[in-house]
Amino acid sequence: MNSPKVGIIMGSKSDLPVMQDAADVLKELGVAYEISVVSAHRTPDLMFSYARAAADRGLKVIIAGAGGAAHLPGMVASLTHLPVIGVPVKSSNSIDGWDSILSILQMPNGIPVATVALNAAKNAGILAAQIISTADEHIVENLKKFKTDLKEKVEASAREMGS
Amino acid sequence: MNSPKVGIIMGSKSDLPVMQDAADVLKELGVAYEISVVSAHRTPDLMFSYARAAADRGLKVIIAGAGGAAHLPGMVASLTHLPVIGVPVKSSNSIDGWDSILSILQMPNGIPVATVALNAAKNAGILAAQIISTADEHIVENLKKFKTDLKEKVEASAREMGS
Amino acid sequence: MNSPKVGIIMGSKSDLPVMQDAADVLKELGVAYEISVVSAHRTPDLMFSYARAAADRGLKVIIAGAGGAAHLPGMVASLTHLPVIGVPVKSSNSIDGWDSILSILQMPNGIPVATVALNAAKNAGILAAQIISTADEHIVENLKKFKTDLKEKVEASAREMGS
Amino acid sequence: MNSPKVGIIMGSKSDLPVMQDAADVLKELGVAYEISVVSAHRTPDLMFSYARAAADRGLKVIIAGAGGAAHLPGMVASLTHLPVIGVPVKSSNSIDGWDSILSILQMPNGIPVATVALNAAKNAGILAAQIISTADEHIVENLKKFKTDLKEKVEASAREMGS
Amino acid sequence: MNSPKVGIIMGSKSDLPVMQDAADVLKELGVAYEISVVSAHRTPDLMFSYARAAADRGLKVIIAGAGGAAHLPGMVASLTHLPVIGVPVKSSNSIDGWDSILSILQMPNGIPVATVALNAAKNAGILAAQIISTADEHIVENLKKFKTDLKEKVEASAREMGS
Amino acid sequence: MNSPKVGIIMGSKSDLPVMQDAADVLKELGVAYEISVVSAHRTPDLMFSYARAAADRGLKVIIAGAGGAAHLPGMVASLTHLPVIGVPVKSSNSIDGWDSILSILQMPNGIPVATVALNAAKNAGILAAQIISTADEHIVENLKKFKTDLKEKVEASAREMGS
Amino acid sequence: MNSPKVGIIMGSKSDLPVMQDAADVLKELGVAYEISVVSAHRTPDLMFSYARAAADRGLKVIIAGAGGAAHLPGMVASLTHLPVIGVPVKSSNSIDGWDSILSILQMPNGIPVATVALNAAKNAGILAAQIISTADEHIVENLKKFKTDLKEKVEASAREMGS
Amino acid sequence: MNSPKVGIIMGSKSDLPVMQDAADVLKELGVAYEISVVSAHRTPDLMFSYARAAADRGLKVIIAGAGGAAHLPGMVASLTHLPVIGVPVKSSNSIDGWDSILSILQMPNGIPVATVALNAAKNAGILAAQIISTADEHIVENLKKFKTDLKEKVEASAREMGS
Repeated sequence: MNSPKVGIIMGSKSDLPVMQDAADVLKELGVAYEISVVSAHRTPDLMFSYARAAADRGLKVIIAGAGGAAHLPGMVASLTHLPVIGVPVKSSNSIDGWDSILSILQMPNGIPVATVALNAAKNAGILAAQIISTADEHIVENLKKFKTDLKEKVEASAREMGS
Repeated sequence: MNSPKVGIIMGSKSDLPVMQDAADVLKELGVAYEISVVSAHRTPDLMFSYARAAADRGLKVIIAGAGGAAHLPGMVASLTHLPVIGVPVKSSNSIDGWDSILSILQMPNGIPVATVALNAAKNAGILAAQIISTADEHIVENLKKFKTDLKEKVEASAREMGS
Repeated sequence: MNSPKVGIIMGSKSDLPVMQDAADVLKELGVAYEISVVSAHRTPDLMFSYARAAADRGLKVIIAGAGGAAHLPGMVASLTHLPVIGVPVKSSNSIDGWDSILSILQMPNGIPVATVALNAAKNAGILAAQIISTADEHIVENLKKFKTDLKEKVEASAREMGS
Repeated sequence: MNSPKVGIIMGSKSDLPVMQDAADVLKELGVAYEISVVSAHRTPDLMFSYARAAADRGLKVIIAGAGGAAHLPGMVASLTHLPVIGVPVKSSNSIDGWDSILSILQMPNGIPVATVALNAAKNAGILAAQIISTADEHIVENLKKFKTDLKEKVEASAREMGS
Repeated sequence: MNSPKVGIIMGSKSDLPVMQDAADVLKELGVAYEISVVSAHRTPDLMFSYARAAADRGLKVIIAGAGGAAHLPGMVASLTHLPVIGVPVKSSNSIDGWDSILSILQMPNGIPVATVALNAAKNAGILAAQIISTADEHIVENLKKFKTDLKEKVEASAREMGS
Repeated sequence: MNSPKVGIIMGSKSDLPVMQDAADVLKELGVAYEISVVSAHRTPDLMFSYARAAADRGLKVIIAGAGGAAHLPGMVASLTHLPVIGVPVKSSNSIDGWDSILSILQMPNGIPVATVALNAAKNAGILAAQIISTADEHIVENLKKFKTDLKEKVEASAREMGS
Repeated sequence: MNSPKVGIIMGSKSDLPVMQDAADVLKELGVAYEISVVSAHRTPDLMFSYARAAADRGLKVIIAGAGGAAHLPGMVASLTHLPVIGVPVKSSNSIDGWDSILSILQMPNGIPVATVALNAAKNAGILAAQIISTADEHIVENLKKFKTDLKEKVEASAREMGS
Repeated sequence: MNSPKVGIIMGSKSDLPVMQDAADVLKELGVAYEISVVSAHRTPDLMFSYARAAADRGLKVIIAGAGGAAHLPGMVASLTHLPVIGVPVKSSNSIDGWDSILSILQMPNGIPVATVALNAAKNAGILAAQIISTADEHIVENLKKFKTDLKEKVEASAREMGS
């Protein structure tokens, strides 16, 4: 496989069932990725070195998932110029996901995080592929095919209902 | 100026005071853009043709701002494979911004919108530049300088407080 | 059966267990309907053609159900002059239904969606029948009987409690 | 003027600045209406007689606006088979409009209220006209023209921005 | 048993598992009560006659429970000068109880409803007994004993923990 | 004036502009009252002695208003068997009133607080009068007249609108 | 064991499964504690005497957990100069924990409560140890080791994922 | 003045009008402090070095204020074993303070932040003094006097009202 273009990180191993969707869709779309656990609160040094080294290691996009007071996406964004996609995770200690969403989305001016829906790691993966595709025509084709597949599944559902 | 890489659209002219920040920061970061009004609800045909034509016209990213039941970013995302950045606008008919945020952020699997904070058009512009920079080393340099400037402003504030 | 007066559509086949209630009550009230899957985000062209053709095909009311960032009811309303009833669905990706409600209810001036309670597809069906009944005395009679039945069920409950 | 087809009522005279929009747009769309104050909590008998007599007096739709614990739309709906449109008003005693919205929207099965956005009396008027138009081709034409005007205003905004 | 002093009503038989607590604690405190189903939306005439006749029938307090867009407590309060206690019920169609609470609590000036916590029918019963006790020394004694029992249960818990 | 039947207390002198409404309506309804400042957090001993002595001093009802983490109504209720009415105050440190409401309303089983709407001290006064009226026919007459006045004001508004 | 430095109290025995975490982590960190049930609403006298005596008995910190309208932490803080840590408990009568959080967090100026996350009794215990450690170098060492353990667990997770 | 025991930091100079209250009350209570601007997102290196060096420099407590996606308090807590007090600031980009509160309060197990009410920097200062006082009898006396002053102000208010 090629060297990874997308780094997927998460605050806790317990986020893996959610975050795996990002990896799966990136594979489906033909984008090389790596995946690991990096905690803003429990391994701040690791987070620093990961984020600071990411661009030089050839990563183009970082996907970071976390729940509750979710600081990982925003802190990584403060430490790199790469685009960072944040996945609010509805973890067991979260208040219905509101804390996860607000602590990722509401970044101050100067340090954006591209936030996707609650638990929507699949959309984070697609968004990362879209970003990579701005300079890679091959991924554009994969994304177009992905959109066509989505459409055809709905059309099949419609046919099943007899309309 | 070069042909635009980023298309900025908004649901209503009344969103311009918020959305202008995206244009200003793109200019500062050296990214060519275009800006217009396209309404999902009042000009659905225009929205369709704008979104469908965007990639062929050379746009790499679309920034879409809207308030209330804000359908523009998500609908544009359904009509193009380009990355779409959504800016929830706290418009006069919005309930403290909650409707704007949720109707942009909570997209279903398959159709991501990269959502930024409420009214954070400046961050949308920076994020667009980050995406462009994944294939443009010149913009990387501009982003690094931007980050340094942010840091220096805080350091100046700290010095003013005498610490 | 007569040609359908009410078109029931939903964003995903997974909304059917909720949306079936609209069909059932329309049948009970003697109003002809059709039912299908049309997704704003995955089949935008189908949505356009469905909404644009609805009035000419003889439909008088459209009921549209969707969850999360629910754009289907509002987008259909932007594409037809028919009254559109929106059913916020508490789908699995919804934040307790708040996103579904706000992205359907908070439409901008000019493009109303008649929103009913969360998951209240039955009420959407009744409301559609009420609209049809403004020009159909037969449906008025059915609605009056429906109201009487509701009343009698409560009275039976009261009797059971011994009062 | 013809005998009124739409009855506009509100819980308090202080709701008039909001509710007047319904009357204005109905006039623009050529639908005859009447407007008055009827309070669920302060004039329950008047509310009963108004709602019970509405259909026989020739009304086809009722628009009811109220704020806070807003019971007027739902109670009127319980007393008539006519379609009832509810306008949640952000009155001075309301908690940012949430109470107004929830106490109008969340009606139990059997008794729908067609709820529009917070303070969106204009949309209530348009929705009432759409309902009337299901049996009145003249109003259909007025609604189509209204939609065209909305589109042209956005197009003019777009031209102003130079695009 | 004496003639009832407290009337307990609820919007639906499905509220009985919650509302029974009011009856049970009233029995424990020695206050005569009656219990029935009265729906604001499905039996508005019954609600009117119940509320209008309550004082003359000798009732001193009314406890009304309802969920969702819960209009029963407020409408009863508009129809009688008796104190009305509202119990917000977290019914199956309620949005986590917020709609039930706000549509009972946020009554306009002039028409109070004494609202208790979500599902707290037991507290509604105690409050009714406290109201009756303002003119009945016997109930005062029962309430004092009730408070002592509460205290002793906590003290027993404390002893169990070994402190 | 007669010895006070209703004690009005508030957590801070800054709550007086809101709480004065309770005093004014009690005066209008002919119920003797007293009014003072008692803080749960700053004068806990005073709160204890006030609440413990209230019944013996002849008070029949206590109205307690507070904002933010509003503990005064609930703590007073824990210290007396009298009915306690809580007024959530939207004080300057409150989060739009939500904290005030929830910390007064959501009392545990055993210790009810009769909660009224945000800032609705007037309704607290009326409710206190309703409670007193359960054993005082004179206050019943005043309450009936009060209700008639409310009705007549709405009828006058209706006449002004020309209906 | 040494005389307790931290007093853990809770409003109800049903809070013990949550609050036990505070005790467990204090034991792990080598801080002596005591644990008991003290209810603000059911045993106000016990709460008074507990809080008033705490400092003289040698306690340095109080941890108080409660749910719903949670007055225990704030009332204890009003009765002692010791630092009080509040644990909002998501008890069965709580509205998703919002009431517990707001009624503990939003204390007025003058009477702070150090609030931790919903159900986060473990963090309350760590915070109490941090406070004790400001004058106890031995606890500092235990806290440092605790932080190292947290880090190592994340690093082990990362290794498991193969990165 | 003595070497500072409490470090007050804030994410932006614009937070100073709120955070100054912490400094003022610490001065009043006789606790030495320092105050500066340290941004998690704009000066992450400065934040790291500040937090890592704090204990060795003799600080005993850190007070950190921030708004929106407020990561400063939690990140500082991850980098030191000192107790960290978080002040949620209702900054101009915050959604009524909810984002500030949740992103500070909802820290994961292992890394507590002692959160105070929205904008309650004064309470943060008092809490810091309470923590210092656990090993400094002089500060205990100051805190007791502070409590007495609070009580006397309320008593004066009560006397003014004539009770």
